[in-house]
Amino acid sequence: MRNILIIGSGKSTAYLLKYLLDKSESEQLFITVADLNITQAKTLIANHKNAKPITLDVFNDSDRKTAIQAADIVISMLPARFHIEVAKDCVLYEKHMVTASYVDQNMQDLHQEAIKKGLILMNEIGVDPGIDHMSAMHVLDRIRDNGGKLILFESFTGGLVAPESDTNLWNYKFTWNPRNVVIAGQGGSAKFLQEGTYKYIPYNRLFRRTEFLEIENFGRFEVYANRDSLKYQSIYGLENVKTLYRGTIRRVGFCKAWNIFVTLGMTDDSYTIEDSENMSYRDFTNAFLPYSPNDSVELKLRYQLKIDQDDIIWDKLLELDIFNPNKKVELVKATPAQILQKILMDSWTLAPKDKDMLVMYHKFGYEKDGKHYQIDSSMVTLGQDQTYTAMAKTVGLPVAIATIAILNKKITTPGVQIPINKEVYEPILKQLEPFGITFIEKEVPYLGYNPLNR
Amino acid sequence: MRNILIIGSGKSTAYLLKYLLDKSESEQLFITVADLNITQAKTLIANHKNAKPITLDVFNDSDRKTAIQAADIVISMLPARFHIEVAKDCVLYEKHMVTASYVDQNMQDLHQEAIKKGLILMNEIGVDPGIDHMSAMHVLDRIRDNGGKLILFESFTGGLVAPESDTNLWNYKFTWNPRNVVIAGQGGSAKFLQEGTYKYIPYNRLFRRTEFLEIENFGRFEVYANRDSLKYQSIYGLENVKTLYRGTIRRVGFCKAWNIFVTLGMTDDSYTIEDSENMSYRDFTNAFLPYSPNDSVELKLRYQLKIDQDDIIWDKLLELDIFNPNKKVELVKATPAQILQKILMDSWTLAPKDKDMLVMYHKFGYEKDGKHYQIDSSMVTLGQDQTYTAMAKTVGLPVAIATIAILNKKITTPGVQIPINKEVYEPILKQLEPFGITFIEKEVPYLGYNPLNR
Repeated sequence: MRNILIIGSGKSTAYLLKYLLDKSESEQLFITVADLNITQAKTLIANHKNAKPITLDVFNDSDRKTAIQAADIVISMLPARFHIEVAKDCVLYEKHMVTASYVDQNMQDLHQEAIKKGLILMNEIGVDPGIDHMSAMHVLDRIRDNGGKLILFESFTGGLVAPESDTNLWNYKFTWNPRNVVIAGQGGSAKFLQEGTYKYIPYNRLFRRTEFLEIENFGRFEVYANRDSLKYQSIYGLENVKTLYRGTIRRVGFCKAWNIFVTLGMTDDSYTIEDSENMSYRDFTNAFLPYSPNDSVELKLRYQLKIDQDDIIWDKLLELDIFNPNKKVELVKATPAQILQKILMDSWTLAPKDKDMLVMYHKFGYEKDGKHYQIDSSMVTLGQDQTYTAMAKTVGLPVAIATIAILNKKITTPGVQIPINKEVYEPILKQLEPFGITFIEKEVPYLGYNPLNR
Repeated sequence: MRNILIIGSGKSTAYLLKYLLDKSESEQLFITVADLNITQAKTLIANHKNAKPITLDVFNDSDRKTAIQAADIVISMLPARFHIEVAKDCVLYEKHMVTASYVDQNMQDLHQEAIKKGLILMNEIGVDPGIDHMSAMHVLDRIRDNGGKLILFESFTGGLVAPESDTNLWNYKFTWNPRNVVIAGQGGSAKFLQEGTYKYIPYNRLFRRTEFLEIENFGRFEVYANRDSLKYQSIYGLENVKTLYRGTIRRVGFCKAWNIFVTLGMTDDSYTIEDSENMSYRDFTNAFLPYSPNDSVELKLRYQLKIDQDDIIWDKLLELDIFNPNKKVELVKATPAQILQKILMDSWTLAPKDKDMLVMYHKFGYEKDGKHYQIDSSMVTLGQDQTYTAMAKTVGLPVAIATIAILNKKITTPGVQIPINKEVYEPILKQLEPFGITFIEKEVPYLGYNPLNR
């Protein structure tokens, strides 16, 4: 038996574990699921003979080291900032490691030592980052292998609610960490390339400079720019593209309404609100509006943001109950972002039978023999229920598949890796297909940003 | 003779030095003006027998210590971040010290030792901070001495161009550090109190939530909120006020137009623009607008920000030449804020004969015997020319007067001080009057923020 240690049994572990258990006989796997609280791990394992839960405090050095030493490969599903201690131990005890998180500098610093010891530290192999890398590189490499010269790359991902569970005016529910949704786009201007020109969008315009997207059978979506679209330019080998744009997908109309919160200052996470625990939702809203002894909070907000009474944005705000004088914030020393998150969670939490949906869309523009071409590649995955969500599936499955591939020496390049090499993405994309994670490609006319081409 | 050492001979030293030289015989003063470059110091001294310039690198420890040891009192007119080394030496060699800058933690840390040695480290005694403290405390103390209970305090200051030199559509020219104007309001939401409620304004709304102000003989102004209006709440003894608001004064219409730059992202100082040195002003503007192969930068900007063609804001933008394809930015690795500053300096630099103007306005609301009262106190000072500016006058004179008062033991309270005690503000305000720095007080009906009171 090969011993796999999974540290962390949060949302994304469900699919990961299910896949490994299903293969545990044929692949001779024994899986240990370690967490501080093993309730969830127990439920997922359900007495399977090839797995066991163990209680582990990842900050307890000796327990962590003992667990890692007993494994052949370690999967860390912890929040990203906790990976590094696990990674150091993996290098120390010569174990491979897999995570779905972004490579940070601490992780990168282990690269040389990992190479020296022949260890693979595979990261960014979930979804955004993960499946986006693999599905993009799959098409990029093919275009280049066929002599095409890339001129445009746009890539969009969104975690959304499935159409059948899409029951609110925002067409949105939280399918992943709500905090990341509330503070999305903060910390600096978005930067990208359009037709050879660098473009910059400040946070206050980010949700007003959206672009539209059509996905067959699913209709219209909108996209706002990610903060740094240029992050993967050299990694993807796109130094010479004229257009490079990465973004986040929402249903049409979300961003314009979300911008109300940005404009009011409700998404700010940099300071705490006075006496937040005793505020009502209405007080919170009023804190961002001028004082008036007579005018209602409603009218002040409408006036400040020029919202007509028949504008659907208004109904979106009402739906969230932000004018309720009786609902209390109850959070001590909370930032505006924390309070807004709480208000949104009242409305945007998935109901027990709700399903989520993961949407990905790439555009590849290229030149060949003096002509311009474009390939659009898209993927939509629906969740089954609240345990086996689309998000858990798209994060967990590539991690699981990569883990077995490393054990079986199908993936062999050592060092701190992300899944951009054929050796990695080809077999994994192939094995994702039976799970409904399939990309549909379409050849479309290359339009670039020139409407006269239409 | 008493020896005064002035370190730094920048803009604000002119009046300071003139005042001290005029008093040098009667008060027996000898003034040493120290700077890295003594050209300006020489011009200002003009062979006066009671002063001399010396070359001093303030980072040269031995030279700095020698100069400070030779003085009876030291005035630091350096940029605020350089005061601390001077202050430490002053404490070491037991010299009093005067600055016009905000007290930071490093300065505050010298408080106990200064008290032990009987030294006065007087700070914030220029203008905003300085004359604002003194003129506010003057009225606040009087109201309280007469049994009034403060319920409202609002305080506004602005460095502007004098009406006779007010020749552009923005009614604004740089009369002090341009950088501070460009980045004003950044770094967090503005926070203040209105009628007992905490209010928060994010940066993107700061210049759209202005209030108006009328000053006799000078007409209408507008005010945007300072970042932290509550900073002096306890220092001024205003723990129980219902309204506390501090702001910056501009001519009406400035803020709405300025907000265009904020909205576009041109005031951002947190990242550098690609290839900034080769950009034209037009390229810079275009970097904040979507790509289009056909539409003009002008129309894109108008459309994005919904500016009608007959809106005066449009003419304000044209006046700054931000669409000029021939003027080059020429700054290497510049932030948007640095580039915008350069563009503005083309238009907003004072011409040789231009005069500046300093405006201050306080509102004091109080309760006495169950009734509400309000006193408004305002001051307007005009500059004489580009050396003896209103800004230099209002910064330099209080520093000079305080210096002599300390030498003459009229100001005696030791420690790290700001001018909020009667001992300090009464004689200084009195001595500022002959220089035209006079506050006009008016009793007005107390309206608070309730329009029904009108």
